[in-house]
Amino acid sequence: MNGAESVLRTLVGSGVDVCFANPGTSEMHLVAAMDRVPEMRGVLTLFEGVASGAADGYARMADRPAATLLHLGPGFGNAFANVHNAYKARSPVVNVVGDHAVAHKPLGAPLASDIESVVRPVSDWVRAVRDARGAAPACAEAVAAARRGQVATLIVPADAGWGASLGPAPPVSVAAPSPVPEGAVEAAAAALRAGSGALLLGGVAARERGLELGARIAAATGAQLLRDTFCPRLARGGGRPRPVGVPYETPLAVEALSGLSQLVLAGAQRPVGFFAYPGQPSLLAAPETVVTQLAAPEEDVLGALEALAEAVGASPSAPVAAVDRVALPTGGALDVERLAAVVGALLPDDAVVVDESVTASVFFVAGTAGAGEHDYLVITGGSIGWGMPAATGAAVGAPGRRVVNLQADGSAMYTLQSLWTQARENLDVTTIIVANRSYAILEYEFSRVEAAGEGRAARELMDIGRPELDFAGLARSMGVPGMRVTEVPELVSALRGALSEPGPHLIEAVV
Amino acid sequence: MNGAESVLRTLVGSGVDVCFANPGTSEMHLVAAMDRVPEMRGVLTLFEGVASGAADGYARMADRPAATLLHLGPGFGNAFANVHNAYKARSPVVNVVGDHAVAHKPLGAPLASDIESVVRPVSDWVRAVRDARGAAPACAEAVAAARRGQVATLIVPADAGWGASLGPAPPVSVAAPSPVPEGAVEAAAAALRAGSGALLLGGVAARERGLELGARIAAATGAQLLRDTFCPRLARGGGRPRPVGVPYETPLAVEALSGLSQLVLAGAQRPVGFFAYPGQPSLLAAPETVVTQLAAPEEDVLGALEALAEAVGASPSAPVAAVDRVALPTGGALDVERLAAVVGALLPDDAVVVDESVTASVFFVAGTAGAGEHDYLVITGGSIGWGMPAATGAAVGAPGRRVVNLQADGSAMYTLQSLWTQARENLDVTTIIVANRSYAILEYEFSRVEAAGEGRAARELMDIGRPELDFAGLARSMGVPGMRVTEVPELVSALRGALSEPGPHLIEAVV
Repeated sequence: MNGAESVLRTLVGSGVDVCFANPGTSEMHLVAAMDRVPEMRGVLTLFEGVASGAADGYARMADRPAATLLHLGPGFGNAFANVHNAYKARSPVVNVVGDHAVAHKPLGAPLASDIESVVRPVSDWVRAVRDARGAAPACAEAVAAARRGQVATLIVPADAGWGASLGPAPPVSVAAPSPVPEGAVEAAAAALRAGSGALLLGGVAARERGLELGARIAAATGAQLLRDTFCPRLARGGGRPRPVGVPYETPLAVEALSGLSQLVLAGAQRPVGFFAYPGQPSLLAAPETVVTQLAAPEEDVLGALEALAEAVGASPSAPVAAVDRVALPTGGALDVERLAAVVGALLPDDAVVVDESVTASVFFVAGTAGAGEHDYLVITGGSIGWGMPAATGAAVGAPGRRVVNLQADGSAMYTLQSLWTQARENLDVTTIIVANRSYAILEYEFSRVEAAGEGRAARELMDIGRPELDFAGLARSMGVPGMRVTEVPELVSALRGALSEPGPHLIEAVV
Repeated sequence: MNGAESVLRTLVGSGVDVCFANPGTSEMHLVAAMDRVPEMRGVLTLFEGVASGAADGYARMADRPAATLLHLGPGFGNAFANVHNAYKARSPVVNVVGDHAVAHKPLGAPLASDIESVVRPVSDWVRAVRDARGAAPACAEAVAAARRGQVATLIVPADAGWGASLGPAPPVSVAAPSPVPEGAVEAAAAALRAGSGALLLGGVAARERGLELGARIAAATGAQLLRDTFCPRLARGGGRPRPVGVPYETPLAVEALSGLSQLVLAGAQRPVGFFAYPGQPSLLAAPETVVTQLAAPEEDVLGALEALAEAVGASPSAPVAAVDRVALPTGGALDVERLAAVVGALLPDDAVVVDESVTASVFFVAGTAGAGEHDYLVITGGSIGWGMPAATGAAVGAPGRRVVNLQADGSAMYTLQSLWTQARENLDVTTIIVANRSYAILEYEFSRVEAAGEGRAARELMDIGRPELDFAGLARSMGVPGMRVTEVPELVSALRGALSEPGPHLIEAVV
């Protein structure tokens, strides 16, 4: 058995059976081995950024890693932005990156580059395999690293693929997350009991079990229940607890966090501004607020919340927090508010929402608050071009659930090739393009940074409406049914149709 | 004057007046300064890989750097693959990469990452600016580095953009390339006079002056005249000298270089295989061939060729090497040979050909051999997704010349957003998509690497025909007139039309 087959068999044996791939020559032995390891599902993407974003979306829904298969340093470069998002989400991902044969690498061939330098900023774990015998054991370690909530990147030279291996390596056991330090639970309990406090949930704490524990703790202590601005996977809808999200905008976040004497962090970092702005603080909590860490993201966050609930004498169940579903608008021209209301009114139960709608997101979050139970996935690393790939991977990782991708037009154009993979794999993804014809977030940020000058040259770098993009046509050209809507009834009809049929659809909503 | 304006004014004052941009919030002050520095032409791209590939194409045609404007580490990640191609081409490029404000960076905001680690593998020169006063001087050095044939990457924190500067910095003088070492010319002359030798031209030596010198030297010594497989800009057509290209395929290259007693390198590296293959050599020249370096790529290659021509007593003019133009095919279904013949027959004089047709390239190179004078640009770093961005930049860098982009379908899908910028800027680019519905190069490489297994799962990762991509529709959806052709007369009519009208066109040639 060659090294390539030993790697694939090790992946499958360790529970990794989906590979989002955009391979090249140096990965041909891994490609060839796909036929001998039919348990591995290869999903072809037309661009590496689709593969890495799909791996992130998959991991968030399947709770286990997918592999990516990438072609040397430039292939990883193309994948980098969405690996960055996965890294910030603590999504388990195993990147398999091909490289030149070991003896070939130093000769200066066109594709040679320092792969480790490129991958390190977005990988918790990096290993360059030396030969075919070392490939499978390194791969087993990569999977174990990923299963701890890490991005693991395994660099496999071509000759480690074609050389003789020792066969697949057994799975490496995954260490449980570390318990929180001695006294952390007691400190958090004391902080919340002191009054005027808040409990901030992030990471795994924003999922169903964490929310329930958080709500019980908040009810017992009178603390406010908050969540991170960008949670990798937020459990929402139905009667689930509804923590208040820390706002994206620095002044609003500062206001939301003002007046707190205590802030307890559970799986969340200390709140920090998305960007710095002249004259505005980077740290969002008030200087006088005492910040106490219950559990760091890599620690046993849920175990710590269980212990905290017990320490504060929380009641055994959380209060039910159902709110009414928004009414379905019946007419009128589309605007962002009406668009969000239609989505909120029609969102199927158990849907997976993938929201990269950027400036429209605040409307969608409000509009879907009254929907049935659903998961809400957002971009965690700020690298746009995440939504469509993540929706693709989420659909692979959560078969049988409807994926609704709320997608800004500017961000859509980074990784639009996702639609082709959605068509090829017949994934149940409905993409709604919020077509405002601009980098609206930049127009907004432009004023926030107090940038002087508001003239034509600057505006030109934020206007994506000239020429106008035809998203419905782009979708159809990649095999996905697409339509453009400008009125509420058209949208209602299009969305109902898309959600009732199998396979991908795209609706370009002109607002 | 803030730091951002001082940077833009320094760029313009140093001769850099085009900026291919995909900015974000951290670059907003640079965007705002565009209005106060109208000499700078900002060209918006919808994806960073378009910006970096355009900068490469621009540099190859304009012989001076353009700037790119990129958004933190992930923005550079998206640009990475085409920066890699520029780096391998020794194209002068100045990357301006925004970063978080200095005090904000260590706080763990979503977009924070180690930018220097990502940029270093593809940058000859890297500098992270510390404050607004240091931005302009560093920028002037970046331009000087680029003008030496380097990729220079300048990292500009947001507060270095908004803080007060000392004004623009004067241009930094650019050192001339180093002369070749003592004795190099004499050694090369002796090698070529020894018989059974070849002179291998690369880099700048593949342009008009280098070719002419090479042809005179070859005529005087009886040496064979060769060129690199992948020259950044090859002067061709009309009566220009016609060096033989070293073949891409290792066995063919080994055969082409066999029987040489001497190989003299002028601006070229020692020939090395594109990839390694089991049982095949990585070094392409025969072990008994004596390799002599006349001039390394970073040295004064043309000066060394002048000296060598004198040393070997070359005649003052090169032999004219005109060949007949290929006849225009008149009918039949399209195949790659007929497609290449139509392009060769109709290629306008002074055209710029940008060839990323991959497996079809050998046909286009042959088909265009008899055309009038033109420049032929190919991918130098093997990172596909280069052709359409490079064609975009070449059109900006060579106004008044027709750009013909020969483009494989698989590679086109990496950076298809280029079409939108071509439409926006009304660039005279005619794109011909060679639609063979597969990663044909991979099918070919698959057999070359002796990968066992030829089953369905492996083939699935090379087949891009399911679903079928509609390139004409994709083009129209981004504002570029597009049509699909399947017969020779349709192609002839479409290509004549495209080449006679201003602005971009796309022809999807189904082969």
